[in-house]
Amino acid sequence: MSARFADRLIEGVRQKNSPLCVGLDPLPDRIPVFFGEPASVAALQNFCQAIVEIAPKHAAVLKPQAGFFEPFGPEGVRVAMQACAAAQARGMLVLLDAKRGDIGTTAEGYARATLGAPPGFNVDCVTVNPYLGKDSIAPFLTIAERDNKGVAVLVRTSNPGARDLQDLQVDGAPLWRRVAEMFAPETDRLKGNSGWSGLMSVAGATYPEEARALRETLPTSLFLVPGYGAQGASARDAVAGFVRGKNGLEGGVVSSSRAVLYPPTAQAAKTLADWRIAIDAAMAQSAAELRDACAA
Amino acid sequence: MSARFADRLIEGVRQKNSPLCVGLDPLPDRIPVFFGEPASVAALQNFCQAIVEIAPKHAAVLKPQAGFFEPFGPEGVRVAMQACAAAQARGMLVLLDAKRGDIGTTAEGYARATLGAPPGFNVDCVTVNPYLGKDSIAPFLTIAERDNKGVAVLVRTSNPGARDLQDLQVDGAPLWRRVAEMFAPETDRLKGNSGWSGLMSVAGATYPEEARALRETLPTSLFLVPGYGAQGASARDAVAGFVRGKNGLEGGVVSSSRAVLYPPTAQAAKTLADWRIAIDAAMAQSAAELRDACAA
Repeated sequence: MSARFADRLIEGVRQKNSPLCVGLDPLPDRIPVFFGEPASVAALQNFCQAIVEIAPKHAAVLKPQAGFFEPFGPEGVRVAMQACAAAQARGMLVLLDAKRGDIGTTAEGYARATLGAPPGFNVDCVTVNPYLGKDSIAPFLTIAERDNKGVAVLVRTSNPGARDLQDLQVDGAPLWRRVAEMFAPETDRLKGNSGWSGLMSVAGATYPEEARALRETLPTSLFLVPGYGAQGASARDAVAGFVRGKNGLEGGVVSSSRAVLYPPTAQAAKTLADWRIAIDAAMAQSAAELRDACAA
Repeated sequence: MSARFADRLIEGVRQKNSPLCVGLDPLPDRIPVFFGEPASVAALQNFCQAIVEIAPKHAAVLKPQAGFFEPFGPEGVRVAMQACAAAQARGMLVLLDAKRGDIGTTAEGYARATLGAPPGFNVDCVTVNPYLGKDSIAPFLTIAERDNKGVAVLVRTSNPGARDLQDLQVDGAPLWRRVAEMFAPETDRLKGNSGWSGLMSVAGATYPEEARALRETLPTSLFLVPGYGAQGASARDAVAGFVRGKNGLEGGVVSSSRAVLYPPTAQAAKTLADWRIAIDAAMAQSAAELRDACAA
């Protein structure tokens, strides 16, 4: 793992010819019964395993959402770690959506728990919350720089409530832009040969104008774009912050969770075989939509 | 558990006659060797167990820091849960310092993982990060209101980097004040018979001026004050946001971690018995300093 995280990510996206990132959001009440007893750890584990077997065909990056595993307690954490390792073994990069944010030795603890070797998650990248300031991101950057990993900072999220704080005006610009400016000087630390930086920005697809403005502030930061698909943004909106590269638009990954995990065809499937076909088709479709948006 | 969290907290503080909250921050390299092999899960578990046996004598509230358990993987999470349950069994309220912040079903997941019954942590209160807006706090409030629990929102933290975002001016007031205003309308939902609300505010002791200003915005919110002791704030500073009650100043709890977990006397102890005496004395001293500050 000698290549920089940013280079590995952009290379993976180029290989798949799509910026699709599969969001692993296991919702207990939507996991088909043939994966196990409803709301059981076994069903969680089997579902994640099945997703991880299909996802690498369509996406370079898997984004497990920690908040869906933690309600299962320590066993849920174990399943999440297994899913991460299984995805990496199949060549995917894993970006853990944990949104951690703390300071000093606590932030170091979270950095080791997520980016660090087992018993840490050993993922390739992790989402972090900037509210506590630069010193809350520093320990993650230190480990990421040393181990060729990435850090994805929440800048402008895709939820309605994002307006409550992130859009407040600070000296003529929204707060989220101040956040971007805050860590812009650090992007070079995680920059790879591709010119892209693994100090990623989370920029919601539901606000394409903002994504374009954010790209001005952070020209090299790879974007993690949530909100595509179930949250209502179009593929075109989702890549609004991308720039023209070798083979079309590039500059990050676009996460899709529900559209690829719970398409109606998969929810209607009576057998595992039918379910696999449905998931494969849903992922292929999302990947293609994003591919087309990048080619346009 | 029919009483409101706020009432249970303020009653506990009155019984101890001190707002001390013991911060459970297990630092692997400071855990004495007689608790087990350095940096082992066993040492972590034995250390936490020993702290939990002494803390209830001096403090009504225990605040485990999730970031110190998660680097140990699923077993670390299990140890944290055991420590929480053990403290509750001894009559303490447990406030999990997890600083979670997400939206929708993910936030619901974190709320169940922390405040919910096993396999959730089943703690009495949890810290949350407001950067994603009101909808990131809502699922926690819903569970807290239903189950008589608390939610502690990060408002103004005690670290140097708190200035980076939290102090940015928004229409003539710092951002942290806008955060306080954002959830002020919700405080009534968790208000108890005491008049205090379990929708707590995290307000760093290193900034007593801010704590007083915050009290104006949130007259009924119980404060969780970090930064006392090792982080340099005085007991008087720590209670700056408290108000005069029946028996002196009240209005929250003040967290002390390193001063009560790793006093030089305990670090020098050669036996468990000596260590216990040192920890007991350190907690007694912190409790007394805060008692005096509240009586003054």
